[in-house]
Amino acid sequence: MERRFDEDLQRLKDRLLSMAGITQDMIELALTSLRDRREDLARQALDQEPAVNRLEVEVEDAILSLLATQQPAARDLRFLAAALKINSDLERVADQACNISETTLFHIKERPPVLPPPVDLSVMGMRAQTMIRESIFAFIHHDPALAKKVCSDDDEVDRAKEGFFKQLLNYMRENPNGISGAMELVLISRNIEKIADHATNISEEVIFIEEGRNFKHHFWKEP
Amino acid sequence: MERRFDEDLQRLKDRLLSMAGITQDMIELALTSLRDRREDLARQALDQEPAVNRLEVEVEDAILSLLATQQPAARDLRFLAAALKINSDLERVADQACNISETTLFHIKERPPVLPPPVDLSVMGMRAQTMIRESIFAFIHHDPALAKKVCSDDDEVDRAKEGFFKQLLNYMRENPNGISGAMELVLISRNIEKIADHATNISEEVIFIEEGRNFKHHFWKEP
Repeated sequence: MERRFDEDLQRLKDRLLSMAGITQDMIELALTSLRDRREDLARQALDQEPAVNRLEVEVEDAILSLLATQQPAARDLRFLAAALKINSDLERVADQACNISETTLFHIKERPPVLPPPVDLSVMGMRAQTMIRESIFAFIHHDPALAKKVCSDDDEVDRAKEGFFKQLLNYMRENPNGISGAMELVLISRNIEKIADHATNISEEVIFIEEGRNFKHHFWKEP
Repeated sequence: MERRFDEDLQRLKDRLLSMAGITQDMIELALTSLRDRREDLARQALDQEPAVNRLEVEVEDAILSLLATQQPAARDLRFLAAALKINSDLERVADQACNISETTLFHIKERPPVLPPPVDLSVMGMRAQTMIRESIFAFIHHDPALAKKVCSDDDEVDRAKEGFFKQLLNYMRENPNGISGAMELVLISRNIEKIADHATNISEEVIFIEEGRNFKHHFWKEP
């Protein structure tokens, strides 16, 4: 029974890893599509959404089945409760990658490339993608220290977003014809911010699994 | 044992209802603050966040304790798994209400009231607030039909958001000095959209509890 539970848990982790891998790929495709103005890449990102949705349903079924049949306690129970939420977060990250892809498709079709190259956006996107990868790594490899690093990286993404926002506001004031295109980039930066927020949520769950205390809202204190 | 479980479940529902009540109040305070340019109301909304955060931790602890000690199956298990996620959603709705409050405080301090009265924003906000109330009502009163209504209302909020966005784009093109203020209203409309998304997520969970099938991604079919 014990070994069976361990095998099922491992299969669950593998599925979550697959979801994380696909969502990271979707983010990268979407942002590269924007940077290089390549429609095909945004479409490839969108094509991957059904696989993530299917995995989300499978993972949830697997977790409920483990809860019902194995009656896990303590750390295993916390793991499964956290996995339920990480599963939702990953699916929502994929949604954000789709939002970026859709805005990008519209943007590169409708707007001439007049805007300054949004370097900050690429940096922000890479940072958010790293946060997703690290939060899942922390989950699989029981690494609460890495999870805490992800939580603090979130502030960096927020700062980058604010800087980018001011840069685009200035651009819009000077280029009223470029307002629509600039607005689309602002919305994409908000999608990236949401991805970073999900990575933070995942990391909070990892800390909860590993340390059994709630990192959210900073209710805990270092000893 | 049975009765004990029922009492614990009822207490859990009551706590989720409290959270829902406070978050609705926060949304209303934030949007009224924006409409009437009253700083005190936005501050009242922000003051309520700690109560929601505390309830979120208490609800999660209560769910894990029920899962560990009562070994629920079938419908009760689905209820508890869904409650875990509804709990997270409600806390994130409160976060969005705080985001609206913070943007509003900045907006009414920094911007002269030159913008056209954002009627659409109030309507959108009321709709999102109703969706939160109805999704929680559907959860407490086992009403999957109402939950499905909430899911379809989400499209209406999305359309309102698009209309509002176009209206503000026109305003910005004609009033370059009003760009910053208009951008803040766009961001607030995105926060409202996120609240409607959370109501949709909660409703999907309700359908899952009541019908044991996954409404998300429309994998199910009507018989």
